[in-house]
Amino acid sequence: MHTGLSHTLDFDRDGKTLGHLSIPFSIDRSPYFQVKVPICLVRNGEGPSVLLMAGSHGDEYEGELSLAKLVRRLDPKRIKGRVTILPTANVPAVIAAKRCSPLDGGNLNRAFPGDPSGTPTSRLANFLEMELFPRHDVIFDIHSGGTSMEHLPTALVEHNTDPDRHRRGVELMRTLSMPYGFVADNGQASPTSMGAARRAGAIGVSGEFGGGGTVTVDTMEITARALDALMAALGVVEAPVLAPATGPSAPTRLLSLSRHSQGLYATSRGWFEPAVRLGDSVTSGQLAGWYHDLERLDLAEQALHFVESGIVLSRRLHTMCEAGDCLIQVAEPVD
Amino acid sequence: MHTGLSHTLDFDRDGKTLGHLSIPFSIDRSPYFQVKVPICLVRNGEGPSVLLMAGSHGDEYEGELSLAKLVRRLDPKRIKGRVTILPTANVPAVIAAKRCSPLDGGNLNRAFPGDPSGTPTSRLANFLEMELFPRHDVIFDIHSGGTSMEHLPTALVEHNTDPDRHRRGVELMRTLSMPYGFVADNGQASPTSMGAARRAGAIGVSGEFGGGGTVTVDTMEITARALDALMAALGVVEAPVLAPATGPSAPTRLLSLSRHSQGLYATSRGWFEPAVRLGDSVTSGQLAGWYHDLERLDLAEQALHFVESGIVLSRRLHTMCEAGDCLIQVAEPVD
Amino acid sequence: MHTGLSHTLDFDRDGKTLGHLSIPFSIDRSPYFQVKVPICLVRNGEGPSVLLMAGSHGDEYEGELSLAKLVRRLDPKRIKGRVTILPTANVPAVIAAKRCSPLDGGNLNRAFPGDPSGTPTSRLANFLEMELFPRHDVIFDIHSGGTSMEHLPTALVEHNTDPDRHRRGVELMRTLSMPYGFVADNGQASPTSMGAARRAGAIGVSGEFGGGGTVTVDTMEITARALDALMAALGVVEAPVLAPATGPSAPTRLLSLSRHSQGLYATSRGWFEPAVRLGDSVTSGQLAGWYHDLERLDLAEQALHFVESGIVLSRRLHTMCEAGDCLIQVAEPVD
Amino acid sequence: MHTGLSHTLDFDRDGKTLGHLSIPFSIDRSPYFQVKVPICLVRNGEGPSVLLMAGSHGDEYEGELSLAKLVRRLDPKRIKGRVTILPTANVPAVIAAKRCSPLDGGNLNRAFPGDPSGTPTSRLANFLEMELFPRHDVIFDIHSGGTSMEHLPTALVEHNTDPDRHRRGVELMRTLSMPYGFVADNGQASPTSMGAARRAGAIGVSGEFGGGGTVTVDTMEITARALDALMAALGVVEAPVLAPATGPSAPTRLLSLSRHSQGLYATSRGWFEPAVRLGDSVTSGQLAGWYHDLERLDLAEQALHFVESGIVLSRRLHTMCEAGDCLIQVAEPVD
Amino acid sequence: MHTGLSHTLDFDRDGKTLGHLSIPFSIDRSPYFQVKVPICLVRNGEGPSVLLMAGSHGDEYEGELSLAKLVRRLDPKRIKGRVTILPTANVPAVIAAKRCSPLDGGNLNRAFPGDPSGTPTSRLANFLEMELFPRHDVIFDIHSGGTSMEHLPTALVEHNTDPDRHRRGVELMRTLSMPYGFVADNGQASPTSMGAARRAGAIGVSGEFGGGGTVTVDTMEITARALDALMAALGVVEAPVLAPATGPSAPTRLLSLSRHSQGLYATSRGWFEPAVRLGDSVTSGQLAGWYHDLERLDLAEQALHFVESGIVLSRRLHTMCEAGDCLIQVAEPVD
Amino acid sequence: MHTGLSHTLDFDRDGKTLGHLSIPFSIDRSPYFQVKVPICLVRNGEGPSVLLMAGSHGDEYEGELSLAKLVRRLDPKRIKGRVTILPTANVPAVIAAKRCSPLDGGNLNRAFPGDPSGTPTSRLANFLEMELFPRHDVIFDIHSGGTSMEHLPTALVEHNTDPDRHRRGVELMRTLSMPYGFVADNGQASPTSMGAARRAGAIGVSGEFGGGGTVTVDTMEITARALDALMAALGVVEAPVLAPATGPSAPTRLLSLSRHSQGLYATSRGWFEPAVRLGDSVTSGQLAGWYHDLERLDLAEQALHFVESGIVLSRRLHTMCEAGDCLIQVAEPVD
Repeated sequence: MHTGLSHTLDFDRDGKTLGHLSIPFSIDRSPYFQVKVPICLVRNGEGPSVLLMAGSHGDEYEGELSLAKLVRRLDPKRIKGRVTILPTANVPAVIAAKRCSPLDGGNLNRAFPGDPSGTPTSRLANFLEMELFPRHDVIFDIHSGGTSMEHLPTALVEHNTDPDRHRRGVELMRTLSMPYGFVADNGQASPTSMGAARRAGAIGVSGEFGGGGTVTVDTMEITARALDALMAALGVVEAPVLAPATGPSAPTRLLSLSRHSQGLYATSRGWFEPAVRLGDSVTSGQLAGWYHDLERLDLAEQALHFVESGIVLSRRLHTMCEAGDCLIQVAEPVD
Repeated sequence: MHTGLSHTLDFDRDGKTLGHLSIPFSIDRSPYFQVKVPICLVRNGEGPSVLLMAGSHGDEYEGELSLAKLVRRLDPKRIKGRVTILPTANVPAVIAAKRCSPLDGGNLNRAFPGDPSGTPTSRLANFLEMELFPRHDVIFDIHSGGTSMEHLPTALVEHNTDPDRHRRGVELMRTLSMPYGFVADNGQASPTSMGAARRAGAIGVSGEFGGGGTVTVDTMEITARALDALMAALGVVEAPVLAPATGPSAPTRLLSLSRHSQGLYATSRGWFEPAVRLGDSVTSGQLAGWYHDLERLDLAEQALHFVESGIVLSRRLHTMCEAGDCLIQVAEPVD
Repeated sequence: MHTGLSHTLDFDRDGKTLGHLSIPFSIDRSPYFQVKVPICLVRNGEGPSVLLMAGSHGDEYEGELSLAKLVRRLDPKRIKGRVTILPTANVPAVIAAKRCSPLDGGNLNRAFPGDPSGTPTSRLANFLEMELFPRHDVIFDIHSGGTSMEHLPTALVEHNTDPDRHRRGVELMRTLSMPYGFVADNGQASPTSMGAARRAGAIGVSGEFGGGGTVTVDTMEITARALDALMAALGVVEAPVLAPATGPSAPTRLLSLSRHSQGLYATSRGWFEPAVRLGDSVTSGQLAGWYHDLERLDLAEQALHFVESGIVLSRRLHTMCEAGDCLIQVAEPVD
Repeated sequence: MHTGLSHTLDFDRDGKTLGHLSIPFSIDRSPYFQVKVPICLVRNGEGPSVLLMAGSHGDEYEGELSLAKLVRRLDPKRIKGRVTILPTANVPAVIAAKRCSPLDGGNLNRAFPGDPSGTPTSRLANFLEMELFPRHDVIFDIHSGGTSMEHLPTALVEHNTDPDRHRRGVELMRTLSMPYGFVADNGQASPTSMGAARRAGAIGVSGEFGGGGTVTVDTMEITARALDALMAALGVVEAPVLAPATGPSAPTRLLSLSRHSQGLYATSRGWFEPAVRLGDSVTSGQLAGWYHDLERLDLAEQALHFVESGIVLSRRLHTMCEAGDCLIQVAEPVD
Repeated sequence: MHTGLSHTLDFDRDGKTLGHLSIPFSIDRSPYFQVKVPICLVRNGEGPSVLLMAGSHGDEYEGELSLAKLVRRLDPKRIKGRVTILPTANVPAVIAAKRCSPLDGGNLNRAFPGDPSGTPTSRLANFLEMELFPRHDVIFDIHSGGTSMEHLPTALVEHNTDPDRHRRGVELMRTLSMPYGFVADNGQASPTSMGAARRAGAIGVSGEFGGGGTVTVDTMEITARALDALMAALGVVEAPVLAPATGPSAPTRLLSLSRHSQGLYATSRGWFEPAVRLGDSVTSGQLAGWYHDLERLDLAEQALHFVESGIVLSRRLHTMCEAGDCLIQVAEPVD
Repeated sequence: MHTGLSHTLDFDRDGKTLGHLSIPFSIDRSPYFQVKVPICLVRNGEGPSVLLMAGSHGDEYEGELSLAKLVRRLDPKRIKGRVTILPTANVPAVIAAKRCSPLDGGNLNRAFPGDPSGTPTSRLANFLEMELFPRHDVIFDIHSGGTSMEHLPTALVEHNTDPDRHRRGVELMRTLSMPYGFVADNGQASPTSMGAARRAGAIGVSGEFGGGGTVTVDTMEITARALDALMAALGVVEAPVLAPATGPSAPTRLLSLSRHSQGLYATSRGWFEPAVRLGDSVTSGQLAGWYHDLERLDLAEQALHFVESGIVLSRRLHTMCEAGDCLIQVAEPVD
């Protein structure tokens, strides 16, 4: 009886290896079922090491497609050190085109440090934090807004109590050339990949690269440049692999998101119409949008106003909302 | 990253405040989703304090609609002390018109003391027991039979090992003027709201006020009078708020439900026809009803007989049943 | 390849025969599937003939259980003529505990005259109207409010342009000893069993015998007495079969339901609280109930008023409603 | 028994009237259910008449929200003639946030001329074509790409064999000031609202105003200006109602979409990455995008090339696709 | 607007062409969706013509996989005339692994002659009967028992009123070297592919080649040999393509299935245990199996007996059954 | 409030008792629901004791039907000691015809030792290991391949660190006269019934007796003989109860399954065609089958090869597979 998570990978073999992490999970339609998480190892001797992952949430495609390309294009002879690629980390969610795994409801980015005898998502998280992350200097986890949300392109690191590591993380984040960046503080026990990276002794870098359950020419370019820039900065590659080299970009502007009042939430079913665009600078009290009730044409739409000033960071795309949905968020610029 | 349960309520502010308890729960259709539990604070200086709640089970409407009215009608200037109102405690279950929350399957009245980092229902239970209940002298949790069951109008308290508090609970239960009452003994670790109230140092009172997933003129009157009577008995209000004052009612008759054999259960799929009515006095061996198999017209319907004597307390309303359904219950009068 | 509807019944055989009507319907889980409609033939020589049916809607149990009993209790030696019994006419709906068939969405009481090569429900309707109904003098189709509705006990016939037959139908309806009765006019092409009976040359009688997706001692008694009374009036039996003989009951009071404005409908999602009881006499403009929005505690519940005067005939039981649900109906007494 | 579609509207009454079209449809959860289609009549004496409708597809919100606003803002004293507004025409689809009605799968824009005794969608289509459209000079039906598609802002009329009416339709289409426009030829029996309008003797104008199951500041402005411009051009209003007046816009550029080869379709499950943007001019053979298989990282993504030259008109937004999905379309400019 | 069924195939082009039949069907998740039915044309000059199809029911894999192989292995230079291959005719059913199409519930083998403006399955049936079948001398449609049934390997033709064509059909059926064969009489208006073939002027041959929703070494060999033998008999190929040539097999034994009483059906929910094997010779009254009720261990299992003598032809595989399921069938040998 | 698992059985009463284990589980459709696990106690004085169970997985019918028969046929006067029978252990899974319980997803054979306050499956497992298993010398748990898998008939014991008990277990396994047998080593904490039996001080014997979600004459005979042989070997019965006595069978051949590489797994969606049969001897590198993609007829089917030599032990029956499905397994003969 197989339990936990198994694989037959040799992490110290040079060259390119395509394989799977296998998580047994006996289910109705398949008694000996195993979640098969695709993984690609690319190695060329000693050197820097980086883990590139996407698909923590299944419907965030910018990183999934970019890493699928990278799996095919990365020539082991032209790299130095080690690149490990997980293009579809929570693969049941990817195949279902959902944020969370349909097998266990698991949200991989809330599942760390996981449990070696838990649900598939929890076992995967545990393997990543305990076995895979410690083999790498840097963990880069690519996110986006997913199906229901648009999000400003924003890089992110979590605060690290070690000042050197913290500074190194912020440096790497700036390397990605994203227009905005966050330094989040989710605590030592953070259930995110960034918390896991920190606990594993690696430097974690993440970010939001688009949204809407789609990819565009623009979001794919941003993602490609961030990947190329990160690998170059680490010394893994010498030339860009995914996108042609470009000139210098504007510096990353740091933002802060730390108060509940920076988001507006629905408290009843309704239809949301925004009055602003992503990236707009708004002030406290400014009109954020309207909330309609299409079954009550006799009632005026409710005007919604921002509680906090800042830059419009994300917005719910699906017009029809339920109580509890986050409609719009503003982030505060940090100088 | 918000975790646990958050709110921005000021419990010590006089007047009436409508707000929400917010429980973050990232889901497929809404990454930044928060369960928004409506809460109403009404306060007028120091004095007695009572928490009125309904919607622990989403399809028990007598309390939900009565408390929704109370939210609008309670004038803070005319009360003394504090009334806190949770009309739709397990709000995802209420919106789904189900007993349990569709988000996590959570049955709030089996979820105490809960877990601050658990499922939404578990986090709500934890907040109630640890933070909200301790702010009140009395917790009144309004239940009924729900969609599939009809139930005699019955007040309920759980046994309290402190004799003074126990006596005070029974007194308050009798104040509700319900025709029947229970003193249940579910143990110190009871996962119910009544167990939580006891552990929080408050006196808990509960009851079944109707059923069938509906409300009637009669069940709404019973509920209104119980609410008015309780608030008056505590000194929170001087005059009835929901129903006109009425004359004295018959004393509450105490019942006991403690043996498995007081209920009759289906052990196969079938269709149940009762031979008695709620409130009937029945004796051991008496015909309780018949169990039909509409696919086997060649087989006589099975006659079902009561094992215990007593008063018919509850009955399954849905004629079609599955193995395991409780068809009918009798309670034993206690003198 | 079997098509249409087949059976191997001999309608002219004396005695009691339990069999099935078979409707082939190839489906995913069963390529050679046949809907098997249970039918019981009871015959003793020439004489009057009556078809008793229930389960046109699967969740109306008063007639289903009563006819299941009758199948077992009717002694062919003690009857005269022919009694045909269909306890679960739209049997897929019965097994699913739904109003309509889950196989094709078919509402049998809107499916006449049907189509011999249509969906299963349509083929059944066609067989009933074209083959089975014409073999009988009287068709008695037992209905009730179903899962979501309570309904006054009410007998019903449809208007017949032949005055003799019309008078005979009303006489039979009064024989049932129901407190209320309707003479409906749904036109010659009425898609109901009553329309089909009329077109088949039989006299149709129907009625609503309860509701709520349940049965009670009272609704089962009303149904038993109506069945016994009808069979006695036709001369099929001499003594009651299902219930002990009782004294005379009050005459049936005739009602009329013919205007859209006799019903109140929801036009948005909400929670309905009635202010009246079934059978109450109400006047135009009188308060009928309230419509709550449990997500908008800041909004007062809407007061709903009757548009027409009359007697409260039916009420939606499920408190939570959607736009389009009929909340309550009044019928006009006819003198 | 109510059948067909009923209402109690007085179309010749001056002032503003909010009401519903009622379509009875007996269903499991509600035996007397009626689809309630909201309708608003605004009238001020004789004059031009226009029907404004949205929600033919439930997840196209630009028109739904704009017309909901218009219902509230249109002052009958300030108009001339008649404006009829259907903000949520296929209302079951709107409440379900789907393209088609969950009651019957009905696609309202493929349902004309419908059937007065058919499914709810079909009965609505029949009422619109036979009763409502003939009361108006102009029918304006507002569409967009819906949840899964982004679409260039494009006005549309269908070809009319009457040259005067055809010219008038094209003129009105140009009045909307949209960047692009189509003259479609779907034949006399076209099942669309435009076909129905033509057969009803009215001039039909339609268009695509956005997409993605969302609204933006930009798409709401385009929709508001088109509505204002149309009403002004017809002489119904004198000043803009929804948006401030703006200067002249660029003339509408006419496009043609008539060949199957103008669209690229998936023929297997996969993940689509576009290489172009909406509005780009592309040539036959040019790279349109890539088709990935995230389960086959060993296979290179497939390059997809345009078969026809033109302007990129629409694109599937959902990255994950199934065989049969239309990935991208080009339209041919017409000079 | 595309309607009906479209394609861009040139049926008179020599060589091998892989393409699709396209059936537009606008749906919630894909407004411009088209069912894409894979089709392969292989042609080499004038000569005999045969259409090979499978996947009429999606879960019958013997023909689907065999024809998928044939698509790749058939060298146009080595054939004479025309071979058209539809490996997955009702492709939505194939992708869903179901008997019928999930898009419209359509059972392709009950859908002929179809309707050019009907549901996708109906439009496909219409195109096949009206356009594709008439281009061929012979139509070979490969079936099996599907997921829930095992079936003796049996060839089948339908009766043809033209004696020459009838004789030719029976000859071709015998060519397949199957152990058993049927000559069915479903009437001129038969909704099957065989009826359609006859009406189109072609000779139809069909058969059951396995079952259980699976394939085995044995059923794949039977299918391969039948395909090779048919193509050879028609002169399309000279040497076997799918399987090595084998020696002569036993002659096909003719069976008859024409009476309802040759099948045993469940009339209630239960669990079926067979007492015989496929191919057994049984006599009227012989024990066929037992019917268990696993919820009623107190009731003896029911013994089921054959009504007719013959050879056991098919059996339901799924042990748990519902009323209406066909449990077992016997066929009568014809001499 | 009932918690845990309750029953009213007297284990020391002679004779035959049919009863239920009751597990309270409050659910939406039934607030006082109790899972009712049927259990049959047969006892005749002191003597050997054996627990016979099936339905750990709901869709494995060989043991369920055999034990249902045994419940009825076992005459307490003709046995010595105690036979306890659980024909449908995870009864919610049995009624759902699924491997796992639909109430909690529970896989009973992965749930030991369970938790007395956990999910229903977990509470059942806990009761079995802590209360029921310790009352017996031997636990016999009957399995098979279930709906999606065929499996060689194979007996199984788990390794026991006590040499005497281990030898006794292997002896009993050989008594069953199955063609193959396993000695598995799942560790002391094994979550299986065999691990639970060992920890409870009993000897556990198990095995796979068929598959496919069906039963056949052959698999029912194998199961009957194994049951008879085991009861005879223990001295519980003197003569066979379920099957006539037969002559000696071939000795059980021992197999080993211990390496991940003994199974072949899908890593993408596809359709599997096997090249071998169960029981075939195969060698490393031999062709095991082909993997088709029915949407990509242009791609050759993938050839799959065995990694290990051995005997083909099990095979997935459902042709259509997803990434992670186990396609085929080989076991290594042990000499």
